[in-house]
Amino acid sequence: MDLIEELRAALPHEGAVLTDPDLLRSYEHDEADLCAYGTPAVVVRPRTTGQVSAVLRAASRRRIPVIPQGARSGLAGGANAIDGAIVLSLVAMNEIVDIDPANRIAVVQPGVVNAQLRREVAAKGLYYPPDPGSWEQSTIGGNVSTDAGGMCCVKYGVTSDHVIGLEVVLASGEVLNCGRRTAKGVAGYDLTSLFVGSEGTLGVITEITVKLRPAPASSLTLVAVFDTLPAAGAAVESIITAGMQPSMLEVIDRVTLSAIEAFRPMGLPTTAAALLIAAVDSGGRAPDDLAAIAALCQQAQAADVHVATDATEADALLAARRLAHPAMEQFATGLFPSGGGIMVDDVAVPRTRLVELIEGIEGIAAEYGAVVATVGHAGDGNLHPIIVIDRSDPTSLARGQKVFDAIMSLGLSLGGTSTGEHGVGLLKRDWLAREIGPTGLKAHRSIKAALDPDNILNPGKIF
Amino acid sequence: MDLIEELRAALPHEGAVLTDPDLLRSYEHDEADLCAYGTPAVVVRPRTTGQVSAVLRAASRRRIPVIPQGARSGLAGGANAIDGAIVLSLVAMNEIVDIDPANRIAVVQPGVVNAQLRREVAAKGLYYPPDPGSWEQSTIGGNVSTDAGGMCCVKYGVTSDHVIGLEVVLASGEVLNCGRRTAKGVAGYDLTSLFVGSEGTLGVITEITVKLRPAPASSLTLVAVFDTLPAAGAAVESIITAGMQPSMLEVIDRVTLSAIEAFRPMGLPTTAAALLIAAVDSGGRAPDDLAAIAALCQQAQAADVHVATDATEADALLAARRLAHPAMEQFATGLFPSGGGIMVDDVAVPRTRLVELIEGIEGIAAEYGAVVATVGHAGDGNLHPIIVIDRSDPTSLARGQKVFDAIMSLGLSLGGTSTGEHGVGLLKRDWLAREIGPTGLKAHRSIKAALDPDNILNPGKIF
Repeated sequence: MDLIEELRAALPHEGAVLTDPDLLRSYEHDEADLCAYGTPAVVVRPRTTGQVSAVLRAASRRRIPVIPQGARSGLAGGANAIDGAIVLSLVAMNEIVDIDPANRIAVVQPGVVNAQLRREVAAKGLYYPPDPGSWEQSTIGGNVSTDAGGMCCVKYGVTSDHVIGLEVVLASGEVLNCGRRTAKGVAGYDLTSLFVGSEGTLGVITEITVKLRPAPASSLTLVAVFDTLPAAGAAVESIITAGMQPSMLEVIDRVTLSAIEAFRPMGLPTTAAALLIAAVDSGGRAPDDLAAIAALCQQAQAADVHVATDATEADALLAARRLAHPAMEQFATGLFPSGGGIMVDDVAVPRTRLVELIEGIEGIAAEYGAVVATVGHAGDGNLHPIIVIDRSDPTSLARGQKVFDAIMSLGLSLGGTSTGEHGVGLLKRDWLAREIGPTGLKAHRSIKAALDPDNILNPGKIF
Repeated sequence: MDLIEELRAALPHEGAVLTDPDLLRSYEHDEADLCAYGTPAVVVRPRTTGQVSAVLRAASRRRIPVIPQGARSGLAGGANAIDGAIVLSLVAMNEIVDIDPANRIAVVQPGVVNAQLRREVAAKGLYYPPDPGSWEQSTIGGNVSTDAGGMCCVKYGVTSDHVIGLEVVLASGEVLNCGRRTAKGVAGYDLTSLFVGSEGTLGVITEITVKLRPAPASSLTLVAVFDTLPAAGAAVESIITAGMQPSMLEVIDRVTLSAIEAFRPMGLPTTAAALLIAAVDSGGRAPDDLAAIAALCQQAQAADVHVATDATEADALLAARRLAHPAMEQFATGLFPSGGGIMVDDVAVPRTRLVELIEGIEGIAAEYGAVVATVGHAGDGNLHPIIVIDRSDPTSLARGQKVFDAIMSLGLSLGGTSTGEHGVGLLKRDWLAREIGPTGLKAHRSIKAALDPDNILNPGKIF
């Protein structure tokens, strides 16, 4: 039986095995710019763990690469296909299996969309914190595979802080259950954490158990306006050093502000060098906490500090922040109609080095004459510099790559990491090697070989 | 050069290489009862990472087993020596390398004692939550190797929730740096979490970077007295289901209460079937939170609910809880002067199954006519049933083992795990195999072989 016949026999339902060339092309890549991709031989959309096993057995026997995919909203090329591979899309496994308020856990299939899970648990008075920018599109499976972050992380941590159990199909087709449903558990190696963030290179995640939190108190929000971006960074450092625990602490620079205002006019102060948006959800202490943060912003020379008068205004600020990515894409197209695009970077440094990172990025942009917008999770020391490029101009592309590399290099020199939350994928492979060194790479390779000896799972990603 | 000569050359300082038989015997085992151990050929006490590398190179070349040890306060035999092995004690690497309040991290060597780190960071207004019962003896290296818990976990999580970076010497002697100093980071596989809880079987941890929290608000404490142990369990379930976030929620049963009162008289209500100790540290909300917990205890038929009038009284309650282990040891010796001892179990279930677990343990004790005290972190669904045995009586020993196994079996049947926080070591190897199944075991073995191909690191532990 050839591969396609075997896959059709194992996945008999309509639309489960796609070979139409037009359809195949729509599964080629994620949202990362400038990462290589190929055309898969086939796309499968299993509905059960048993079907995922069947796909992996068929692939293993033939040593055909398998590329797991969620919503393809990733930003590092981790879901990009290669020629002749099987793309294994998990989007049809999209059931919320269980929400258990008493034990504060939920069990979900990988294709459940982040925002859907958030809404369903919220309806039961619970909270699933991880909130990547892509939350209305991205799947929990993809979030787990990249260990996605978001704006909540400054207080509530990243995806890995919330995953306590997984069902994973190994390259052999065997089904591994790891982790637990209990609040605590230390039985054996923490395989759950090993699979989280492994970007589909060690196994295919088919079920996820996450911890939930009680719904937080409603939050209070302020926005502080700064005349320089480093001043906003200094405010962040002083807020963290003072022991404050904001539930959000985001920065938006002037370029991004202008782009957002052009994308959706909402009266943002586009002449400001930087906005800092801070929120607190500490219940009865919240007004005092917000006042303390406001005072620290003023000490850091904020030109203006404005407390949102109600939830509507706070939501509008949040919505503005969430538009950074599409707004910058439109801005790039406006700047370079022939081929405007953006390279979204992701760098995190110790929070005390944030000002140095911001000043360094400004210096790099000036040195190369590039447009670099800076936006990000300032409270985590995690920025997303966005480099505007003209894809049709080789000089612009080369300059973009140099700026990107200079920012990565700067981040590492400040004791940082080459990816705070987007993952390595294809985009950061060289930087990962530099960050973890030869011993780290060797350990990665040995673990990969132990779990996927034929290297069929998302080969070439991460390292 | 023979092994001892090579070790002496690499570790030239006084007391670094021990071969005196009396000294060797004092390094044979941890605090677990009824676990096998042997006599090492040599004990080494390195002071630097380079010395640890030298020891592992010498061991690798000769394929001699290496048993990493901290304070040997473990409760699962994970640090037990085997005949002819090298015991690698990390207690001389006991420096706090850095406490960085602005980035809220500390960097420590593995031999630093838990309580020492807690005190030093507290002096800077910060908080290192993990608080195993052994905190005045146990080392951070041991805590990390077993992923130790404690009373804080119900609100603040276990050791793995606080470790963000490690320096590890691999079996080959190579030094691996993993993790980060940043608030977020997803560069490559989460090797840090893989080493946490791996009980010295994958590498020797030589430096640890932990997250710190701002010092919590001072806590308020109550004690609720129950006429039955299941009623206390029901109170816990209702507290968690109501979305409360106590900073401590501990249960002590009648046997344990009597043992503690006999060990150190402090006026505990020894006629009560169970005490529940709850604390909250939610700042301005704390009085309301404590009142809500008190009301839930009363609804669950508490005979009495008493709010501690001050910190001294609260501390006394906490101190009583912390005496459970030594008090039960004394109780066992009193009961069986010829060889009284205790088997300390560690089982965690989903919090909604706590009452079933408690009732099941009472049933098992009755069925076998055994004395089983129950104490533990009720808020996590994590209990430590303590089985009293007479070591000099084979019937008592056999009965103890049967009770132990019945409790383990019950825990798994309730969807629980065979170890909530003590680890697998030697004590729970069979139960781990049952819990994770053949595919899980195979994954463990392949990862072990990938990182320690000659199986020299703590061989025979975990699986």
